Amino acid sequence: MSGTKPGKTGAIADEKLVAEVVAALAFNEAGLIPAIAQQYDSGEVLMLAWMNAEAVRETLQAGRACYWSRSRGQLWRKGESSGHVQQLVEFRYDCDRDAVLLVVDQTGPACHTERPNCFFHAVRDGSVRIISEPRPQD
Amino acid sequence: MSGTKPGKTGAIADEKLVAEVVAALAFNEAGLIPAIAQQYDSGEVLMLAWMNAEAVRETLQAGRACYWSRSRGQLWRKGESSGHVQQLVEFRYDCDRDAVLLVVDQTGPACHTERPNCFFHAVRDGSVRIISEPRPQD
Repeated sequence: MSGTKPGKTGAIADEKLVAEVVAALAFNEAGLIPAIAQQYDSGEVLMLAWMNAEAVRETLQAGRACYWSRSRGQLWRKGESSGHVQQLVEFRYDCDRDAVLLVVDQTGPACHTERPNCFFHAVRDGSVRIISEPRPQD
Repeated sequence: MSGTKPGKTGAIADEKLVAEVVAALAFNEAGLIPAIAQQYDSGEVLMLAWMNAEAVRETLQAGRACYWSRSRGQLWRKGESSGHVQQLVEFRYDCDRDAVLLVVDQTGPACHTERPNCFFHAVRDGSVRIISEPRPQD
């Protein structure tokens, strides 16, 4: 996929660059922007979550995905309790600057259901099917 | 990636199944849900757009991606004027039912800038870089 190896310090931004990115992004009326997380090597779409300016800042400075939890109303450092962190490989955003793509290296399952990714409902052959199962962790 | 070949009629849903999917999805207060389009074979994340119930219905019945244009306030049949259609390979949604993943086969560039995908701004090696160029069409 991206060809970029995880762990590159190029994924991490200094204060000036972070400010440039935050200023460039078009956050919605609630101060949020949708962010897609994609596994850097397989191309698997892992999840979609939301970021505010502070989550963007932290993600770019720490080199790990940090979102804004709309349900809890607070920063959500992905994997902080589960250990299922997402190391940032590259931070991208789109033509309209209103969507983010985080190219990451996922540790463990991305989904809170313990599935590899969150998109496990599929319309397939005439019904909605569950296409992956929870993956027990070692 | 998905391993599913495009053109499978399994991607198309009858009226009952469409109703089931629409009822399952958690549309936001504006009646919309974010939808990621991903190229079925390469795994490339093409774009993020929005769907309302009618766009979900049309996508599942026609087997082609149809979104809701927030700027124009109308259905957006992707590629209707440009020819850059997205044939539906599989319709998926996530654990929280508040995000859609359209696995598609993209004709031509996905982005209105004529780039292959919309995520062409990248934070790379200390600056924001444009990582793809418009691709002239035949």
